[in-house]
Amino acid sequence: MRIIVDAFGGDNAPGEILLGCAHAMDQLGVDIALSGDKDKLLACAGELGLKDQLDKMEIFHCTDMLTMEDEPTQILKEKSGSSMAVGMRALAEGKGDAFASAGNSGAMAVGATSIVKRIKGVRRVAFAPVLPSTKTPFMISDGGANVACRPDMLLQFGLMGSVYMKKVMGVENPRVGLVNVGTEDHKGDDLRLAAHALLRDCGEINFIGNIEPRDIPYGVCDVAVADGFTGNTVLKLYEGTALAMMGMVKGIFQKSVKNKLAAAMIYGDLQGLKKAMDYNSYGGAPIIGAAKPVFKMHGNAKANAVENALRLVRDCTQSGFVEEIANALGRKQNG
Amino acid sequence: MRIIVDAFGGDNAPGEILLGCAHAMDQLGVDIALSGDKDKLLACAGELGLKDQLDKMEIFHCTDMLTMEDEPTQILKEKSGSSMAVGMRALAEGKGDAFASAGNSGAMAVGATSIVKRIKGVRRVAFAPVLPSTKTPFMISDGGANVACRPDMLLQFGLMGSVYMKKVMGVENPRVGLVNVGTEDHKGDDLRLAAHALLRDCGEINFIGNIEPRDIPYGVCDVAVADGFTGNTVLKLYEGTALAMMGMVKGIFQKSVKNKLAAAMIYGDLQGLKKAMDYNSYGGAPIIGAAKPVFKMHGNAKANAVENALRLVRDCTQSGFVEEIANALGRKQNG
Repeated sequence: MRIIVDAFGGDNAPGEILLGCAHAMDQLGVDIALSGDKDKLLACAGELGLKDQLDKMEIFHCTDMLTMEDEPTQILKEKSGSSMAVGMRALAEGKGDAFASAGNSGAMAVGATSIVKRIKGVRRVAFAPVLPSTKTPFMISDGGANVACRPDMLLQFGLMGSVYMKKVMGVENPRVGLVNVGTEDHKGDDLRLAAHALLRDCGEINFIGNIEPRDIPYGVCDVAVADGFTGNTVLKLYEGTALAMMGMVKGIFQKSVKNKLAAAMIYGDLQGLKKAMDYNSYGGAPIIGAAKPVFKMHGNAKANAVENALRLVRDCTQSGFVEEIANALGRKQNG
Repeated sequence: MRIIVDAFGGDNAPGEILLGCAHAMDQLGVDIALSGDKDKLLACAGELGLKDQLDKMEIFHCTDMLTMEDEPTQILKEKSGSSMAVGMRALAEGKGDAFASAGNSGAMAVGATSIVKRIKGVRRVAFAPVLPSTKTPFMISDGGANVACRPDMLLQFGLMGSVYMKKVMGVENPRVGLVNVGTEDHKGDDLRLAAHALLRDCGEINFIGNIEPRDIPYGVCDVAVADGFTGNTVLKLYEGTALAMMGMVKGIFQKSVKNKLAAAMIYGDLQGLKKAMDYNSYGGAPIIGAAKPVFKMHGNAKANAVENALRLVRDCTQSGFVEEIANALGRKQNG
């Protein structure tokens, strides 16, 4: 298997990306190809002592890159020569089995749609991060690719998310919930009411009805279905609140010598909590609905998170989840 | 000043409501009137040793009550004889200066609109809870009264929230932010783009632009403007995540004898954190836009939270914020 990685996406590119890729090649039994500026990569590999590893990676050379400030659609225009666009084109042309980038997620959704193309029958691709809860991890589908949605799009987000959680994350019968302002069936706006009916009547998934945001941190579902605006709000507020709380706890432990002593006594358990709530440990978010595996890595991912992401990309690609989504959509349309 | 309290709203009615009201009458220099079943209140006061205090409260007698399962609009129909409806009618008829209930918030918004009525020019009332952050408290406006909104409604939510934070919470020049999927001006769906332009061009408020949900816990704004669906999502996820994190920290501290010892060493600071993140300490959420002060107390409020809420109701009523909103809307329409 060969994974194409955007060497110039994210806050820590290319150094941490290169390090993570080198580890992944050693540890995960995958080939790596990189898209990006060859000269810069050679210089970076020299600094990090990774020249031998870089020699084993094919490089799709390009000098341009997308930034977080670029408009997503620029990947098809001014930035069609960027490392993200070049990597995606290589995937579309069959020069690799999957693509991963820590760059601009909006641009990735556009590129997945227009360069990699969608699975037949998919209305819109979804950005679908998997996050920790107090129990089991859960997916938000859509986490922000589509700020305006129709009900049939929400149905597909649920269906695709369910396939992913089953095939890739190994969840037996994924519980699919619709993020709403109340658990009762009649709650919500027109979009929620229509999406609720479609999800309920879809025979392909285990729909558990509406879920309230207050229950999300407790692992109430395996797939939280939302329009991209709501899903992005959930994703960012969840991360922000968890980080703020961890910061406040940390503040307490640094307040005095006595408190530092208490912190030392439970150091191991605190690290466990930090790890349990670390979204980086799940490595990345698939862009589901694309015709080939496309993964967003966290923007501030360091080498270890890159390696975790690439493990997920490998497992995902091996699982055949793209084909499974195509099958599920086919059954839905014929059924 | 006389505050009318729904004695049969919320999880802990009527006992904790009565206790909180008795404290408030002693401590806050306010008169209390209650709406609800007189016989049950007498019996409850007998059990709690509060007969003398109850004697000083007028009772608007009614035997019916609204439940959390009732549809909000039932306050105008089958449940027009409930303690919530009776209390609101008493307010509308001038038998008190403000109204508070820990009951069904949807029904309160309907009652505030149709029984108490709106301030002239107000399109929709908003449910506007004030929540803690790592720095200063902030308001969500709208926190769930209106699941579907137009841009001019969001403008008013910002304007009314700003007046409240200034007049009642004493914030000098409240920072008003629009909850959105990115901080850049061009981010978001049609509703956000149109609301952004209206808020930016409104001379009455200190609009700081779009805010991302991840920054909300850090006190990035004083008023977070949102449609009711998004605002309710923020409210519930924020509470849920904070509670889940506190639960995980608590779990660590109970894990072993050593950990319990560590917890004992920092007990005071942990209580401080718990208090800092306790939405009950801010006592309640105004239904802003109503022609008289209407307050939602937290559904599971106990006596202490009820007393805190009534302090806020008193301060709010004294501040003249209803008149100030009317003035601000008048200036806006004439300006």
